[in-house]
Amino acid sequence: MSQNPRRRVAVVGATGVAGQQFLVSLENHPWFEVTVLAASARSAGKTYREAITAENGQEKWGCEEALPDGFADQRVVDAAELDLDAVELVFSAVESDAARGLEEGFASHVPVVSTASAFRYEDDVPIIVPGVNHEHAILVKRQQRERGWKGFVVPIPNCTTTGLVIALAPLVRQFGVNSVIMTSLQALSGAGRSPGVGSMEILDNVIPYIPKEEEKVQTETSKILGRLAGERIEALDLPVSATCTRVNVRDGHTESVNLSLGRPASLEEVAGVLRAHGTEFTDLGLPSSPPELIRVMDDPYRPQPRLDRSLHDGMTTVVGRLREDRVLPNGIKLVLLSHNTKMGAAKGAILVAEYLVHKGLA
Amino acid sequence: MSQNPRRRVAVVGATGVAGQQFLVSLENHPWFEVTVLAASARSAGKTYREAITAENGQEKWGCEEALPDGFADQRVVDAAELDLDAVELVFSAVESDAARGLEEGFASHVPVVSTASAFRYEDDVPIIVPGVNHEHAILVKRQQRERGWKGFVVPIPNCTTTGLVIALAPLVRQFGVNSVIMTSLQALSGAGRSPGVGSMEILDNVIPYIPKEEEKVQTETSKILGRLAGERIEALDLPVSATCTRVNVRDGHTESVNLSLGRPASLEEVAGVLRAHGTEFTDLGLPSSPPELIRVMDDPYRPQPRLDRSLHDGMTTVVGRLREDRVLPNGIKLVLLSHNTKMGAAKGAILVAEYLVHKGLA
Amino acid sequence: MSQNPRRRVAVVGATGVAGQQFLVSLENHPWFEVTVLAASARSAGKTYREAITAENGQEKWGCEEALPDGFADQRVVDAAELDLDAVELVFSAVESDAARGLEEGFASHVPVVSTASAFRYEDDVPIIVPGVNHEHAILVKRQQRERGWKGFVVPIPNCTTTGLVIALAPLVRQFGVNSVIMTSLQALSGAGRSPGVGSMEILDNVIPYIPKEEEKVQTETSKILGRLAGERIEALDLPVSATCTRVNVRDGHTESVNLSLGRPASLEEVAGVLRAHGTEFTDLGLPSSPPELIRVMDDPYRPQPRLDRSLHDGMTTVVGRLREDRVLPNGIKLVLLSHNTKMGAAKGAILVAEYLVHKGLA
Amino acid sequence: MSQNPRRRVAVVGATGVAGQQFLVSLENHPWFEVTVLAASARSAGKTYREAITAENGQEKWGCEEALPDGFADQRVVDAAELDLDAVELVFSAVESDAARGLEEGFASHVPVVSTASAFRYEDDVPIIVPGVNHEHAILVKRQQRERGWKGFVVPIPNCTTTGLVIALAPLVRQFGVNSVIMTSLQALSGAGRSPGVGSMEILDNVIPYIPKEEEKVQTETSKILGRLAGERIEALDLPVSATCTRVNVRDGHTESVNLSLGRPASLEEVAGVLRAHGTEFTDLGLPSSPPELIRVMDDPYRPQPRLDRSLHDGMTTVVGRLREDRVLPNGIKLVLLSHNTKMGAAKGAILVAEYLVHKGLA
Repeated sequence: MSQNPRRRVAVVGATGVAGQQFLVSLENHPWFEVTVLAASARSAGKTYREAITAENGQEKWGCEEALPDGFADQRVVDAAELDLDAVELVFSAVESDAARGLEEGFASHVPVVSTASAFRYEDDVPIIVPGVNHEHAILVKRQQRERGWKGFVVPIPNCTTTGLVIALAPLVRQFGVNSVIMTSLQALSGAGRSPGVGSMEILDNVIPYIPKEEEKVQTETSKILGRLAGERIEALDLPVSATCTRVNVRDGHTESVNLSLGRPASLEEVAGVLRAHGTEFTDLGLPSSPPELIRVMDDPYRPQPRLDRSLHDGMTTVVGRLREDRVLPNGIKLVLLSHNTKMGAAKGAILVAEYLVHKGLA
Repeated sequence: MSQNPRRRVAVVGATGVAGQQFLVSLENHPWFEVTVLAASARSAGKTYREAITAENGQEKWGCEEALPDGFADQRVVDAAELDLDAVELVFSAVESDAARGLEEGFASHVPVVSTASAFRYEDDVPIIVPGVNHEHAILVKRQQRERGWKGFVVPIPNCTTTGLVIALAPLVRQFGVNSVIMTSLQALSGAGRSPGVGSMEILDNVIPYIPKEEEKVQTETSKILGRLAGERIEALDLPVSATCTRVNVRDGHTESVNLSLGRPASLEEVAGVLRAHGTEFTDLGLPSSPPELIRVMDDPYRPQPRLDRSLHDGMTTVVGRLREDRVLPNGIKLVLLSHNTKMGAAKGAILVAEYLVHKGLA
Repeated sequence: MSQNPRRRVAVVGATGVAGQQFLVSLENHPWFEVTVLAASARSAGKTYREAITAENGQEKWGCEEALPDGFADQRVVDAAELDLDAVELVFSAVESDAARGLEEGFASHVPVVSTASAFRYEDDVPIIVPGVNHEHAILVKRQQRERGWKGFVVPIPNCTTTGLVIALAPLVRQFGVNSVIMTSLQALSGAGRSPGVGSMEILDNVIPYIPKEEEKVQTETSKILGRLAGERIEALDLPVSATCTRVNVRDGHTESVNLSLGRPASLEEVAGVLRAHGTEFTDLGLPSSPPELIRVMDDPYRPQPRLDRSLHDGMTTVVGRLREDRVLPNGIKLVLLSHNTKMGAAKGAILVAEYLVHKGLA
Repeated sequence: MSQNPRRRVAVVGATGVAGQQFLVSLENHPWFEVTVLAASARSAGKTYREAITAENGQEKWGCEEALPDGFADQRVVDAAELDLDAVELVFSAVESDAARGLEEGFASHVPVVSTASAFRYEDDVPIIVPGVNHEHAILVKRQQRERGWKGFVVPIPNCTTTGLVIALAPLVRQFGVNSVIMTSLQALSGAGRSPGVGSMEILDNVIPYIPKEEEKVQTETSKILGRLAGERIEALDLPVSATCTRVNVRDGHTESVNLSLGRPASLEEVAGVLRAHGTEFTDLGLPSSPPELIRVMDDPYRPQPRLDRSLHDGMTTVVGRLREDRVLPNGIKLVLLSHNTKMGAAKGAILVAEYLVHKGLA
C-alpha cells in the first residue's frame, strides 16, 4: 500500500458519453486509478484525444468539465483484448450489443460495475442504487459460485429509475407504497451522442416517447425495491405506470410523480421521511457520496434542472412540490430531479464500487 | 344583409398576446368585422402599430402570422370608453384585474365572449368549449334575466383545460371517467408577454410550477363536463390531479394523462370513441371549425408540439401514445397536444361566438 | 400534352434533408411530376415512408410541411440503377461522395439540377442563382458539346452563398463592390441530419466553425458574380472574408455583411437598388418565383429568422440594418436573412429548373 | 487591521442582475466585506431574499451560483439614504437613470466602482479594463481635485467592449491597429432581467439589433485604448464598425472580429502577442485576477460559449479561429469569447477595485 494504494481500474467504453463521465469522476480518485482506457477496435491504438475526434476534426468531448490532461494522451486499447491481469476492477460503459459478451469475459476475472443493461435482469445480478438497496450486493457471491467467476457484474439502473427509487425507497419503508404514476421530462444527455437527439428534433419541441424506457422503469423499480430473501430478490409488487418524454434540457431528469401510500401520512411526515433518508449510507463517508441523498425544497418553483441538478455534484436527488393527490388512496404527489449523468450514471456507478470495496466485496 | 352582413365587433385588450391572436383570426372573417380596437387608456389615441411598439422601438407583435395591414393604422380606443352602440359583439382579451368591471359594462349591452377568467366561476356563466358543452350556452338567458343585461358573458377556459376536456368529453359520455391524473408540459406563449417567461429562466430548463393553474384545471374541468339541469350546471364529480410545468416550447401544450374509465374498454374502443368525437359539431361547418376535433395518432413519437400543433390551424386536439394503465381501475393513459393560443384562446373563443350566432343566442 | 403535360422527374437522394425538401416543393407542381424517388441501395425496394423510418421506429421526416401522401407509399429505387429513359429531368440531392459519379451518369442522358457540390467548380458548369446570373445557364451547351452529354449538370450554390450573392448582385451592377467581410449565423438545418448538429452541442451555445464553408463562400461568390465571356465565366475579383458560425436556429441563415462599394452611394440609393433587384426575373412569373427577390426592412430589429424566413415561402432574401460603415471605403453594412432550405436549397433548385425549361434549355 | 482587515463595502443596485453577480463574487472576498446592501426605496426594509422575490412568489435570483446564505437575511437599505460613513467603498450596479445622481452622492465621500454607464463618457473619468489601461486610474485624482470629491467614480465598460479591448490592446501596442469590423453574438444575460429578452422572442431566433450597443463599443474602445497624456486621455483614432446581435445563449458574448494591423505580422506572431498579454498585470496576483488574461485556442471549433466561458471563472478572454483576412490591409480575423457577467461586469469591477486598492488609490 505504501507506493500506490489505489486499485488499478479499466474504463471500458471510455470514448462514449458515459465513459467520458467515468473519466471526469475518476480523475484524482482516492481509491481508484484509471490505468486502462478501452473501447472498440476502431479506437484501439489511438490516443484518447484522437479516439474522440470526429472525421471533421471536432473533438467529441461531451462533459461540462474539461478532458483531464492525464487521459488525453493515453493510448486506447481494444476492449476485446483487455489484459485482465493488469486491472483489479472494470467500469463498463459499453453502449453496444457487445456489452453482454465483453462483461462476461471481464467478470470471469475481476469485479465489473456497469452502466449497461446487459445483465440487469438476471436473477443473480443485483441492480444497486446507493442508499436504497446496497444490501443486495451480497448476490455477487451467488454469481461467483454459480457462474464460476472470480469477479462479478453489478449494474446500476437506467438513469430514469435512479431518482425514482431514491425517492420511493424511504416511503416504501416507512408507509408502504401501493402504486406509482410517473411522467418524466428527460434530458438530452440521457440519449447519448451516437446519434443522440438531433438539434432539429428537439428545438421548440417535446418528444413524447423513449423506446423501452417505460418498461425499464417498471421492471427495475420493482427489483431494486424488492426484498432480499437469502440470495434471491423478491421483486416488490408495485405497479409503476410511466410516461417518458424528452425535453430540451441538457442534463437532469425531471419526474412528476403521483403515488399511493400504504397508510395515511401528512405532507410534513412525508417530507421528514424523505429528508432523513440514507443517513446510514452517507455516514459511511465514501469518496463520491453526497452529504445528503435527498434534498426537499419548499419553494414551489423548484426543483429546476438548471438550478438544482448540480447540487452536491449531481449526487443528490432534489424533491419539491409535495402535495396531496385526490385521486390515489393516501395519495401524494411530488416533482423530483435527478442528474442523469452523475448519480444516474458514471458517478453513481463509482459510488457503488466504493461501497463494494468498503464491504470487502470488491 | 345586402351591404355588409358581417357583425361589427370590438376586440378589447387588443394589444396583448390574446388580443393579437384575435386580430389574426378575425382578419377576413366571414361573419365578424373588427370595427373597434380597444385597450387601456395608455394606448388610446395611438394607431395600433404605435400601441404595440415598445419604448426601445421594438414592435411587440407576438404571432407567427404578420400583423394584418388593415389593423396596423387603426386607432385604438380606451376600453373604458367603448361606444357600445357601435358594436354588436365584444371579444374580450383583457388580461388585467380590470376584466371584471369592463366585461360587466359590455355585457349589459352586447354579448361578450372572453378569454379572461373574471366570470368563469359564476353560477350563471357557462365556460364553453366547442363540441364539448356548447349546450351550456343556454345559460346566457339566465344571465340576461337575472342580471338585467341585454348581452351576456361567455368565457372560454384556461388553455390547459381546453385540450383535456376535449379528450375527456367523449370518454365521459361513452364509458364514464372516475379520475384523472395529468402532468402538463406547457408552452411559453401560455404565460403571455408582460413579463411572460424570461429567456434566461427557461433556457436549458423546466419550471415545475405555474401559479393557480392546477386549481383552474380541476374546477373548470368539473364545470365544463357537468350536466345541464334546467338553467344550472351540476359539476361533474371528477377528481383531476394536475401537475403543471413549463417547458421551452413556443406554442402547444402537451399533457400526459392517466385516467380511470367507468367500465373496461379496449384501446381500440377508446381510440374509436376519440376519433368519432364531435362530428355533430364539426358538421355545423362553422367558419373557424376544424374538420375533426380530435386526431388520434398511432406513431408512438407523436404528438410533438412543433410537428402537430398547427394541424387544422391549431383547432384540432392531437392524441397519441394510447396505452393501458396498470395503476388506475380500467386505466388508460395517453399524451395529448392542444394549441394554446389557437383552440385554447382567441380562435377557440371565435368558434364559440360563431356557435352562439348560429344558435341565435348572439 | 393533352393527357399530362408535366415533365416526369426523378428526385435522387430523396430520403435526405434536401431530398425531402424537393418532395415538399414539387408536390402539385404545375410543370414537374415526380415519378421516381431514388436513394442509396440501402433504401431501394422500400416504400418511401419505410425508407425514412429509423431502426427505433421514428420517422425521420425533417420538413415543417407534412410528408405528401402521394409519396409515402411510393417505392424507392436504387440511384445507381435509375432508368433514365423514364424521366426527363433529375433533381439531385445526393449528399455523399457518390454525387460525382451518379450525376455524371444522369447528365449523359438528361438535365440534372443539383444541390450537391460535386460539379460546382468545373469550368463548364454554371452555379445558377435565380435573378442573379441565370444568363450563365448558356454554359450547359458547352457541357453537352465538350462532354458529349445529352443532358447537363447545373448546381446551385452552398446555402450560405445564396443570400449573399442575391444581395450583392444589384450592388455590383450599380455601384461595383470592391470587398466583402461577412459573419454568418447559420441555422441547424444547413448541417443536414446525418449526423447533423447534436442537440447537446448547440443548446446554450454557438459553434464558431463550419468546415469548408468559408472557402465555398469565397469561390462561389466570385464565380456567380462573374462575367460571361462567350462560353466562359470570368470570376469576379472580389475578396470575400467570411466567418461562418452555427447558432441554435432551425431554419434561416443570418449574415452580417460589411462591404466596400465602387463609388459613394447614400443608404437610400442602396436601399432603392436592392428593392428594385430582379424584377426582370420575377416578371417571368415562374411557378416557384417569389414576387420580390429582396425585401428591405426599416425596422432595426429585423430581419429575424423566426419572423422573416418564411416570407414568400422562403424565396425572398430579407435585408435590414442598412448603415454606413466607417472602416471600408464607401462602406456600407447590413444584415441579411436567407432561408437555407428553401431558396438556398431544393426550392431554389426547382426555380432554376423552371428557368431552364422556360429558356428551352431543359 | 488585526480584528478585520477587510474594507467595508456597499453593493448598490444589489437586487438586479449585476448586483447579484457582485454578491456572488464578493462572498468570502479577502479584501472586501459587504456590510451594506442597497437598492431602490421599493426594496428598502425587506430582507434581501424578500426583495428579490416576485409577487408570484418566484425568487428572481439569476446567478448559476447559489444565493450566499449570509446575504439572504440581510436587510436592504434605500440607496438614496445610504450611510456613507459606514462604508469605505461602493460597488454600484444601479441600472436606472438614477445612477448619475446616486453615484455623484457616493463619490463625494468614497470611491465608487461602477458597472453603470452614467459617468463613462466624462473627460475626467477613466473606463478601466484590467490589464489594458489600468494606468488610466490616475485620473481619479483629477476627479477629486476638480470636483471636490473625497471619493471618485471608476466605471467599467459595456460588456461587449470588454472582450474586444482585451484582445485589441496587445495588438495595438505591438503592431498598431488601423481599423476593426466586428459582429457580436451576445448572450441573454447581457440584457438584464427587467424585462430582459422574452423567451418567445429568442427561441429559434436571432435578434439583429441591440439599441445603443454599437455606438458604445466605438466610443468606449477608442477611450480605453487611448493614450494617457498627463491627466487627459487622448482617444485612439480607431474606427470600429460593429454589428451587435443577440443569440439564444445564456452567458458569454462571442465576437467575430476582422482587423487591420499597422504592419505585417504572421499568425504565429499575433498568437504569441495575444498569449503574452497582461502578465505584468496577472503577476500582481490580485484576488480576482485570472492567471492569464487571454487564452488562444488552436481547435477551429473553439471558443464555444458553453464550453469556454467559465475558464478561470469567466475572467479570461478566449480567442480562436485566428486567420488571415484578405480584405483589410495586413488583415487578420479571429473569434473571441468574453464572459459578460464575470470579467464583463461585476467580477471585472471587483478586479478593478482590487487594483485601485493595490495602487493606494482607493
